[in-house]
Amino acid sequence: MKIQYILELVGTAFFAISGALVANEKSAKDWFGVTFIAFITAIGGGSMRDILLGSYPLVWIKDINIMYSIMAGVVVASIFYGYLLKFRKTMFLFDTLGVAMFTIIGTEKAIAFGVNPLIAAIMGMFSAVMGGVIRDVLTNETPILFRKELYASISFAGALFYLGLEYIGAIRNVSFILSILFILAVRVVAVKYKLTFPHFRRFT
Amino acid sequence: MKIQYILELVGTAFFAISGALVANEKSAKDWFGVTFIAFITAIGGGSMRDILLGSYPLVWIKDINIMYSIMAGVVVASIFYGYLLKFRKTMFLFDTLGVAMFTIIGTEKAIAFGVNPLIAAIMGMFSAVMGGVIRDVLTNETPILFRKELYASISFAGALFYLGLEYIGAIRNVSFILSILFILAVRVVAVKYKLTFPHFRRFT
Amino acid sequence: MKIQYILELVGTAFFAISGALVANEKSAKDWFGVTFIAFITAIGGGSMRDILLGSYPLVWIKDINIMYSIMAGVVVASIFYGYLLKFRKTMFLFDTLGVAMFTIIGTEKAIAFGVNPLIAAIMGMFSAVMGGVIRDVLTNETPILFRKELYASISFAGALFYLGLEYIGAIRNVSFILSILFILAVRVVAVKYKLTFPHFRRFT
Repeated sequence: MKIQYILELVGTAFFAISGALVANEKSAKDWFGVTFIAFITAIGGGSMRDILLGSYPLVWIKDINIMYSIMAGVVVASIFYGYLLKFRKTMFLFDTLGVAMFTIIGTEKAIAFGVNPLIAAIMGMFSAVMGGVIRDVLTNETPILFRKELYASISFAGALFYLGLEYIGAIRNVSFILSILFILAVRVVAVKYKLTFPHFRRFT
Repeated sequence: MKIQYILELVGTAFFAISGALVANEKSAKDWFGVTFIAFITAIGGGSMRDILLGSYPLVWIKDINIMYSIMAGVVVASIFYGYLLKFRKTMFLFDTLGVAMFTIIGTEKAIAFGVNPLIAAIMGMFSAVMGGVIRDVLTNETPILFRKELYASISFAGALFYLGLEYIGAIRNVSFILSILFILAVRVVAVKYKLTFPHFRRFT
Repeated sequence: MKIQYILELVGTAFFAISGALVANEKSAKDWFGVTFIAFITAIGGGSMRDILLGSYPLVWIKDINIMYSIMAGVVVASIFYGYLLKFRKTMFLFDTLGVAMFTIIGTEKAIAFGVNPLIAAIMGMFSAVMGGVIRDVLTNETPILFRKELYASISFAGALFYLGLEYIGAIRNVSFILSILFILAVRVVAVKYKLTFPHFRRFT
């Protein structure tokens, strides 16, 4: 449990870093605006999951360490700004790691609430992508959901993969690590080979 | 009660169909994005109502049949895509039926929470229109609320009409059917004669 | 307590007035749309705070006087429309007063929930600015958060100022009035001298 908690804080910081970088390229250019967007990006998905489930108190309201992770992320983004923009591949891996961890943690939390597995997978995906969606809505971007690359769908597939492993009785930590690797691998392959989902309207 | 439940599932499917069609004309073009938007359109309004009222668990989280209705709606939208776009008048009637049913069901639910009738009417309107509003925000459209045609206002008027019937002691099923017919009739007349609300600032 | 309640209703009406004026300049031009936007502007921030804290029932659902304040604000906006647009400085003071009062009331409410002071300051800021942010998202404006002028940051600073006074043991009513004056003064100075926050990326 301790390792998972540390991973959650690290994932939060990764999301804050990516939020700060996106914010600074767009509308919010001062320290306050960038921090605000980093904060929304990091806590938006988990907050939406908890509000939909009725799980109170929200994680970041209960545990001030989440705030410290976000602030650390913003400072890191500021110090290593040039470096981070240059090594976009590193950032891409960090972001995908954040998505992967939030997906599985969110799915687990929803399962603990006794919801249907399909709903749990949606909650896992929401945890991982909704922070970015809210960020995009606030900064007037096309939400990340609807860009061409696979993003939310891979999170959703990872949640289903995890639930499948649980279903066949795999040990929890094994399921956790395998599902994270699954999401990482699929996303790397999807971006490398520019995979896209079939266009709607195929049946017509 | 059984008939109302079936109506609710049918209304959900209608909203999913209209969400899928709108999504496909705009930003989300693949199966995943279209399904996502159909889902948001169908559950957004009811979820907002329940979150504002503090009514947990949310309907679609408790009852997996809502998800099946949405998926059925997306498949129907795909199979009958050309047909549905061609017969826009049919779609318009289905959409208005969905709005009417969600308005009355939402108003009833709020009344059961013991809120002021004015608040209940707002909750009925939110149930019916907020899914579409969230869809429009996510796809960068002008929210349906602010387009010229009467839409949310007719839902609100229908909720007040229902509450008026309840107030004078009408039998519940009679109020339900009369209010649905009221919303349908007013909307058909409003669109046919291009009725609009008086412009703000009249008093100046 | 009585005076604070009256101030809250007055603050709500101020927010409704400013919401109605903004709405009428933009997308929503009829009475219904303008009232809807005024309503969202007035109740959005407090609702978000209460939903995040899990504080039910929401204030405006419990107390119908909030609705009457909003309606009064819309009527006032309509009658004095020309006057209000002409005397933008008066409006600016009213808006800042609304922001100040909502900030402190929201911070107090969060503290009463036993959250960390940093979280309480965020909740105070959310109470004051999120109604305007939601309004801007719905009307396709750049959210007020990211415009150049200091706005949310002054609300946040005011909340911290209030918490500092509480920390050193100041009498509550004194803290309340001093914090309101602090927010007013800082905002007037910030706008007069066009103060802005330091640009992000300073460390690079």
